[in-house]
Amino acid sequence: MGTTDDMGATGAKGITGAGAADATDRRGFSRRMMLGGAAVATVATSLSLVAAKDATSADSAAGADGAARTAPAGGEVRHLKLYMEKLPDGQMGYGLQKGAATIPGPLIELNEGDTLHIEVENTMDVAASLHVHGLDYEVSSDGTKLSGSHVEPGGTHTYTWRTHAPGRRKDGTWRAGSAGYWHYHDHVVGTEHGTGGIRKGLYGPVIVRRKGDILPDRTHTIVFNDMTINNRPGHDSPDFEATVGDRVEFVSITHGEYYHTFHVHGHRWADNRTGMLTGPDDPSQVIDNKIVGPADSFGFQVIAGEGVGPGAWMYHCHVQSHSDMGMAGLFLVKKADGTIPGYEPHEH
Amino acid sequence: MGTTDDMGATGAKGITGAGAADATDRRGFSRRMMLGGAAVATVATSLSLVAAKDATSADSAAGADGAARTAPAGGEVRHLKLYMEKLPDGQMGYGLQKGAATIPGPLIELNEGDTLHIEVENTMDVAASLHVHGLDYEVSSDGTKLSGSHVEPGGTHTYTWRTHAPGRRKDGTWRAGSAGYWHYHDHVVGTEHGTGGIRKGLYGPVIVRRKGDILPDRTHTIVFNDMTINNRPGHDSPDFEATVGDRVEFVSITHGEYYHTFHVHGHRWADNRTGMLTGPDDPSQVIDNKIVGPADSFGFQVIAGEGVGPGAWMYHCHVQSHSDMGMAGLFLVKKADGTIPGYEPHEH
Amino acid sequence: MGTTDDMGATGAKGITGAGAADATDRRGFSRRMMLGGAAVATVATSLSLVAAKDATSADSAAGADGAARTAPAGGEVRHLKLYMEKLPDGQMGYGLQKGAATIPGPLIELNEGDTLHIEVENTMDVAASLHVHGLDYEVSSDGTKLSGSHVEPGGTHTYTWRTHAPGRRKDGTWRAGSAGYWHYHDHVVGTEHGTGGIRKGLYGPVIVRRKGDILPDRTHTIVFNDMTINNRPGHDSPDFEATVGDRVEFVSITHGEYYHTFHVHGHRWADNRTGMLTGPDDPSQVIDNKIVGPADSFGFQVIAGEGVGPGAWMYHCHVQSHSDMGMAGLFLVKKADGTIPGYEPHEH
Repeated sequence: MGTTDDMGATGAKGITGAGAADATDRRGFSRRMMLGGAAVATVATSLSLVAAKDATSADSAAGADGAARTAPAGGEVRHLKLYMEKLPDGQMGYGLQKGAATIPGPLIELNEGDTLHIEVENTMDVAASLHVHGLDYEVSSDGTKLSGSHVEPGGTHTYTWRTHAPGRRKDGTWRAGSAGYWHYHDHVVGTEHGTGGIRKGLYGPVIVRRKGDILPDRTHTIVFNDMTINNRPGHDSPDFEATVGDRVEFVSITHGEYYHTFHVHGHRWADNRTGMLTGPDDPSQVIDNKIVGPADSFGFQVIAGEGVGPGAWMYHCHVQSHSDMGMAGLFLVKKADGTIPGYEPHEH
Repeated sequence: MGTTDDMGATGAKGITGAGAADATDRRGFSRRMMLGGAAVATVATSLSLVAAKDATSADSAAGADGAARTAPAGGEVRHLKLYMEKLPDGQMGYGLQKGAATIPGPLIELNEGDTLHIEVENTMDVAASLHVHGLDYEVSSDGTKLSGSHVEPGGTHTYTWRTHAPGRRKDGTWRAGSAGYWHYHDHVVGTEHGTGGIRKGLYGPVIVRRKGDILPDRTHTIVFNDMTINNRPGHDSPDFEATVGDRVEFVSITHGEYYHTFHVHGHRWADNRTGMLTGPDDPSQVIDNKIVGPADSFGFQVIAGEGVGPGAWMYHCHVQSHSDMGMAGLFLVKKADGTIPGYEPHEH
Repeated sequence: MGTTDDMGATGAKGITGAGAADATDRRGFSRRMMLGGAAVATVATSLSLVAAKDATSADSAAGADGAARTAPAGGEVRHLKLYMEKLPDGQMGYGLQKGAATIPGPLIELNEGDTLHIEVENTMDVAASLHVHGLDYEVSSDGTKLSGSHVEPGGTHTYTWRTHAPGRRKDGTWRAGSAGYWHYHDHVVGTEHGTGGIRKGLYGPVIVRRKGDILPDRTHTIVFNDMTINNRPGHDSPDFEATVGDRVEFVSITHGEYYHTFHVHGHRWADNRTGMLTGPDDPSQVIDNKIVGPADSFGFQVIAGEGVGPGAWMYHCHVQSHSDMGMAGLFLVKKADGTIPGYEPHEH
């Protein structure tokens, strides 16, 4: 397992540049950028369109009355600039700023009803694109060469993503809403299915929330891409930190060639839309291990250490050779005093 | 991607022979055979046991009042003749007529409560069988050599499939009904598990509907069989046509050796029995990508172009090497005037 | 297919040693050990913490009034001794008695709210451990070398597993209960992920039941471990017996390196927590085939022969090469007179 990683880790509130000191989050994980209007941080690794919260409030998903915070209704129209870039090590990434691309790319959060216009600039020397799963977009935003919606080297293309709340159609049937744990990726580099771009890191998470969905304290993205986690070499997979009681959201995305099984020690989730049971009548299976294949995505929230306490909890692919080759990291759940029983960070 | 394909594509009404002109369906997709009584088309690629509709009604799943059409209660007893044949290219198929076998075999639709007696004639020079998933059948209709329910070359065997509506057992527990997206296949050719027969094309779709289930305008079957779609060579996968607003049903079946991920661009479905949410309380995940393995099957309905408009929308296996090797086709969603923005059919 | 196997097969009542005559169960399947208090059978292959039933009652899950029996509320604290041992053939297993290890290990059943302290003795010459999925345990019971919770050769370690009923958190969100079809396995032998221990047989089933969950007549565990079923050689997979009308529970666990598809002939289940629909509003898909990967687990109950009658029903991995290599067994559903139509046991 590798060093603590905060790429793709976001706090639930505030406008925060990744390079900026973050006095409101003692754990240094908060890198969420809120676009409450024109405000844009200089460097950021995620985009949230949820209403910005008071940056001085307690670092918890619970409100003052103890109730979990929930997502508001959507309906806003937003604009975003995204860069597709070569990283110094030859990999590729999406970034909100020039020179700041990350793997995975920035977390993009929307509420059902929101529209997002993304101007994508391709700073690389090969054509690339932005293809999203789950959202509404016209074929001109499909991100395929077939539809001509890719971006030539040095060029730009504006992709428009729309989302919608669920509702009843005129014919009486129920139309599902856009809410879900989705993702975006290149569909052009290397092959007409973006095999080369995806392999090198051109992917990222998208969360669409429904009004009333529970909001987490922070979100971590874990991408099983071929035999890597987030394109990290084996045995250098990202670790994620939390304090007992934090409401932590994980987004699991798979890419590449292989099937995997996503497993977390000591924590479970429901195999449904939110990863959380809706109540006693929800028949969904509760699991801690799930088979996944390329382009699958799902997400869930856990209360760190709930019922199990602090600890260095492994998460890993449970295909035996994959975990043995290093597809494993740690969910480091600390006590309030910052320590983790039985775990010496310097050893790992 | 290959040429437009209408094998396994069926209109929702009328008795239509595959070779016959079909004045009531301008898109030439309707090949459903209705057995409302003794009427049998000369050549057909699917069987529906739902009540035959007026062949002159509007080509839409919505009734005159705009409400979606729904499946009636079952309870009928039907008879069908099915042929197992070698195709000219050495593949094998099931057909409703001699010399008319197709890959996949004919779509068989039932309503919960229906019984179907299928007299299967084996015109090939090797033993073969008919094994179905999901339905009720005695072991004499299992289609295995173990049970002696296979068909010798030149022979016939009658398989009886029964279905039932859900209900409460005497012990108070709930018994699930037969409704589902199921399938049939050989269980004998090559090995005692039919590996050779399945590889060559001996498989087809079965849909069992529950009273009140929404009926589609048409149904398309997509079988990921080893590295092919519907046994077509790579880069010649079937395309499927629709007009914006059509209610289109897809049946996804997997066979062979490999796992795949089934993905459609611009359209989503619910990961539940019907592929459609039952309403706001249905906790099922909405997805556009699903990991599948041999003999898995599921289905769903989409409104073509809903929220995304017309276009040449890819569907493909999302395992990168599989799509690169040609496991990809098009869902061609046309405007009312028959055109598709940004798509020139002659290019593909 | 191999000979009838009763490892992992348990009757639903009574304290029964595996080596003891079992006059109350004419089919010789009952090997469940009830720990109603201090009572311990001399040799047993499973542990149940549900309240012991009258061993003279009818061999059926239905009570005197015909209603299905259900699980009681939990809340008890239990103690168990478990041995990790080398088997004579070089494989490894967990056992409730010295010299009595089995593959899979004993079935451990709990009710939500129960706590189980397991003193594990390692009689082998390599370090090994006990890691459980789905239950609540502190990191000192994680069974990893990372946490120091493994067992050195000749040593012992006490693992504590807790379970909890579902309920509402203070923040208003719903906390899932522990109920589920879970499993335990080594996490140490061979690699830090227990690849060697799992391969050799160090795994077993755990069922946590919710108050009101339907209880089966008996439970069978089927583990797809690499290319074996329950570590049996190909074409010698276990068969399981029942009489038409029995309520039979299957626990499906996967381990090792490969993905599989779990298929049963003539019987289906719901893809939800219990494998049984909760009623007419449960939207879960009913299936008879499910893709699974290492460490996945699920379970379900069927009424043997319901709607299909007696027979030698195959269950098998539906990946074609896997079934052809012998990953297939029989679910032998007998008539009340003990015969199975069309099946001669001596042939197989």
